[in-house]
Amino acid sequence: MDPTYNDIIAFHGHSCPGLAIGYRMSKAALAFLSESRSADEELVAIVENNACGVDALQCLSGCTFGKGNLIFKDYGKHVYTLYDRTSKRGVRVVFNDRYVPAGMRQDREQFITWLLSAPEGTVVSLKEVQIDEPEPARIMKTVMCSFCGEGVMITRTREIHGKLACIPCAEKIERSSAV
Amino acid sequence: MDPTYNDIIAFHGHSCPGLAIGYRMSKAALAFLSESRSADEELVAIVENNACGVDALQCLSGCTFGKGNLIFKDYGKHVYTLYDRTSKRGVRVVFNDRYVPAGMRQDREQFITWLLSAPEGTVVSLKEVQIDEPEPARIMKTVMCSFCGEGVMITRTREIHGKLACIPCAEKIERSSAV
Repeated sequence: MDPTYNDIIAFHGHSCPGLAIGYRMSKAALAFLSESRSADEELVAIVENNACGVDALQCLSGCTFGKGNLIFKDYGKHVYTLYDRTSKRGVRVVFNDRYVPAGMRQDREQFITWLLSAPEGTVVSLKEVQIDEPEPARIMKTVMCSFCGEGVMITRTREIHGKLACIPCAEKIERSSAV
Repeated sequence: MDPTYNDIIAFHGHSCPGLAIGYRMSKAALAFLSESRSADEELVAIVENNACGVDALQCLSGCTFGKGNLIFKDYGKHVYTLYDRTSKRGVRVVFNDRYVPAGMRQDREQFITWLLSAPEGTVVSLKEVQIDEPEPARIMKTVMCSFCGEGVMITRTREIHGKLACIPCAEKIERSSAV
């Protein structure tokens, strides 16, 4: 039932070295935790980039942008930390840039094949880590913006002239009063 | 070939009202633009929340977190703007919170069924919009952090004592020198 690399290509839209890197990182981290996909929020992922590989992680781990269990830190690193709320264990997985054979990156297809087939210990490094358990995602009440009439999460409103405004309306009003 | 609602459940992990909302919003926006899934970056989505529905959008539009064509604005609103780089057309789609019949939300399954089957004009509003074309995602060079030895995107490095550091190493060094 786990998504195959082809299922992940279908989600991402194409195959590329980044997707293959994320595939190997995610498979290794899930195996380390002896976990499969997260139907709800059992797993949480902290990703240190927003490159192609994160799409493989979303498919394989079930830590998705829309479920709130995908936390983005904009560090530009091929590093994911996967945390299991049930076992309270965490694993940090790193792509081993430096172990890629010289010249391998020049042929894109050859590089993808290498990434998908090289031994796990060559492609990634894994380390058990202790982290503070991330807060679960919360569903907030929706209210209506008094200005545009559209629904907005109560925690994302501002008060303008004693009325609730969504952020885009509040900013528009602030800009027009500044003129 | 387009993902079905069941395919989207498989990606998200479960069905819920939020997922059904995102499904209807995404289907309507894609039909408005006469577009199907984005294999590369033909489509760009600007999403005004990070709720469950965005997972439906990722599956249906191919605007995914890992591909860089999913732009998040944290406004807490069920609003997506979908832009087509080919036709240069954009559409803004809004979930019509206020048209949900009274009492409907109390039964989760009934609410999902209603969301999936009510007429499009009841569930969502669509409007053609002009927006500035978002920049495409760029792939940056990877360098090695002089401190941890891990790969890091060149644009996410800092200089510490004349050497390149990744952000986590830079912050660790800054914290330890502050003590």
